[in-house]
Amino acid sequence: MGYQHWSYETLHRLCLDSFTGFGFSGEEAEIITDVLLTSDLYGIESHGIQRLYRYYRAIQKGLIKMDARPEVIFETPVSAVIDGHDGMGQIISYNAMRMAIEKAKKNGIAIVSVRNSNHHGIAGYYARMACREGMIGLSCTNTNPIMVPTYGRTAMLGTNPIAMAMPAEPYDFFFDAATSVVTRGKLEVYNKLDKPLPDGWALNKDGHPSTDAPDILSNISEHKGGGIMPLGGSTETLGSHKGYGYGMICEIFSAILSLGTTSNGTGAGGRGLICHCFAAIDPAAFGDPEAIKAHLSEYMRQLRESPKAEGQDRIYTHGEKEIEAERRMMREGIPVNDNTMVEIKSLCDYLKLDFSRYFGSYTIPEENASFRGNFY
Amino acid sequence: MGYQHWSYETLHRLCLDSFTGFGFSGEEAEIITDVLLTSDLYGIESHGIQRLYRYYRAIQKGLIKMDARPEVIFETPVSAVIDGHDGMGQIISYNAMRMAIEKAKKNGIAIVSVRNSNHHGIAGYYARMACREGMIGLSCTNTNPIMVPTYGRTAMLGTNPIAMAMPAEPYDFFFDAATSVVTRGKLEVYNKLDKPLPDGWALNKDGHPSTDAPDILSNISEHKGGGIMPLGGSTETLGSHKGYGYGMICEIFSAILSLGTTSNGTGAGGRGLICHCFAAIDPAAFGDPEAIKAHLSEYMRQLRESPKAEGQDRIYTHGEKEIEAERRMMREGIPVNDNTMVEIKSLCDYLKLDFSRYFGSYTIPEENASFRGNFY
Repeated sequence: MGYQHWSYETLHRLCLDSFTGFGFSGEEAEIITDVLLTSDLYGIESHGIQRLYRYYRAIQKGLIKMDARPEVIFETPVSAVIDGHDGMGQIISYNAMRMAIEKAKKNGIAIVSVRNSNHHGIAGYYARMACREGMIGLSCTNTNPIMVPTYGRTAMLGTNPIAMAMPAEPYDFFFDAATSVVTRGKLEVYNKLDKPLPDGWALNKDGHPSTDAPDILSNISEHKGGGIMPLGGSTETLGSHKGYGYGMICEIFSAILSLGTTSNGTGAGGRGLICHCFAAIDPAAFGDPEAIKAHLSEYMRQLRESPKAEGQDRIYTHGEKEIEAERRMMREGIPVNDNTMVEIKSLCDYLKLDFSRYFGSYTIPEENASFRGNFY
Repeated sequence: MGYQHWSYETLHRLCLDSFTGFGFSGEEAEIITDVLLTSDLYGIESHGIQRLYRYYRAIQKGLIKMDARPEVIFETPVSAVIDGHDGMGQIISYNAMRMAIEKAKKNGIAIVSVRNSNHHGIAGYYARMACREGMIGLSCTNTNPIMVPTYGRTAMLGTNPIAMAMPAEPYDFFFDAATSVVTRGKLEVYNKLDKPLPDGWALNKDGHPSTDAPDILSNISEHKGGGIMPLGGSTETLGSHKGYGYGMICEIFSAILSLGTTSNGTGAGGRGLICHCFAAIDPAAFGDPEAIKAHLSEYMRQLRESPKAEGQDRIYTHGEKEIEAERRMMREGIPVNDNTMVEIKSLCDYLKLDFSRYFGSYTIPEENASFRGNFY
């Protein structure tokens, strides 16, 4: 599959025009676009512009309700619960994190739990919002079920990412990771390449470890059982119960505190039913924010400069890879695969946007022309 | 190595008498004893009564200062930083979590970060304190360095456990796990049994995966390099960067927010320099605590009752194993190994306590008589 590189500005304009074309306000379109393109810039293609068409389809199907008005159903000076009423995940999440940040500015710490939302892109985006205001940001979200609990054979948890960001120099600390060993996107990459999966990633429908990507992906799609292992694998030897535990922490802060839907119940009745949680912590609640930032920066420097394993030349601290990817892509463009270009073309046709205004003389390669969308 | 089973009451009396013998008040001795024996009752021998003698030695060496007066050096209605001034980790931690609970009762959420403390037993004990008052409890602690960051060969983080507890029926949610793939205690068990380590646990001094327990343990003791892998192993394929990331989250909340010492600097100058963090969250800050508890209980029931992997007959939820172990040991006694009995005997002699008053006619087996302590 080929990739085209497009400038940030080109994709930004396309996304904005598309989301306003769907009916979002300019301000809303700007938020959704920023979440999507941040993911692409960080090198997380699965959550970037390749999802543009899926959001369009979700709106068409009524999964995402354009007229939803998220509602604060419980609130204290340090907490809130929001019912998203099936609105766009990014808008709901952006506003929920803004609320957490405002509360934390006044009171030091705040947690906002959200129910009845939809897929919101990368969890780390919202953690980074707090970080940009000098705070610790935390966010997590449950997802459609795909993680199988230790010794089980049915997906009962989502990939359930937990993200955290905190100011540091020269790179902020930025951690954003599924609590499952990998995400579904990784399985799909191996599937496309026709390669067996690494040991320790997935389970077949009987709950046995398997490296058969097509079998596992079709079982997941058809709800036949199996799925992805928790971080730590399928037995306690390498800590399966730990990844499963972090997945539970995500469910508790998102779906339990909000009285929302746990991962195993999401998607019911044609609704997303996704739950999130956002927290902001002001370092000023613990002393001098500059001293705390300097202390973290120094520790991260020590980590990067500590002795490397034989054959390795670099130890990364969390956030470095994303910043480097962002700089490279702002310089060299963002890669978009040709199948995604097919979807974008079809979207432009529907929205009566002039495809060539964004992409000039680019034409869909013959081999991709028959692609009819990659909906999962 | 043989094990003797002793009643909870016997060990409770011995611990109380020992800690008051060291010079702690009755109330302090009761706290330390409860932390130690809770660990034994939960089946975590490494952090239980077998550490009694090590605490005694740490006090003798001046690592733990009996006259320390922990000091609140920064405070807001939802947060605090405490300097432990090298006191006993359990006392400092108990009081820090009490402070978090009191603040959370008034304000919904509270976080207390602690520096200059010492080993405090199982992190989960403190999370459970909040849980017993109907709250979500979180706690974490850094430790002596033993976790090697992804692609490194020097231990720069500790085992850095993160614990969380939350009320549920019939079992509370209780999660307490090192962010390293295993703890040092597990390596020592394999060493004693003269067995190779499982793949995916440890690194030799060059940073290569190794199953050679004696080599790894001696490298750790002599600071020659190597150590234990993060949860997720030594490469990104199985998520090494994730375990390393959770270890970082532990460092940030304990050592960074308190401006304390990160794991790689602990133990310097004959001081422990251990840092902790404790958080309490009142579910009432998110709505009806009973409804939230019922929602968690129902999800945990669904998890336990979900289909098992072929060949497995049980899916555990976090906390079940500990409660079952506690019930069994209250009934059948707590197992204490004969080497620990040697240490207890020697401690009784020093404190002029009558060993037989606790342990009747038990005598140290011939093969253990030459044991001179297991200090690591």
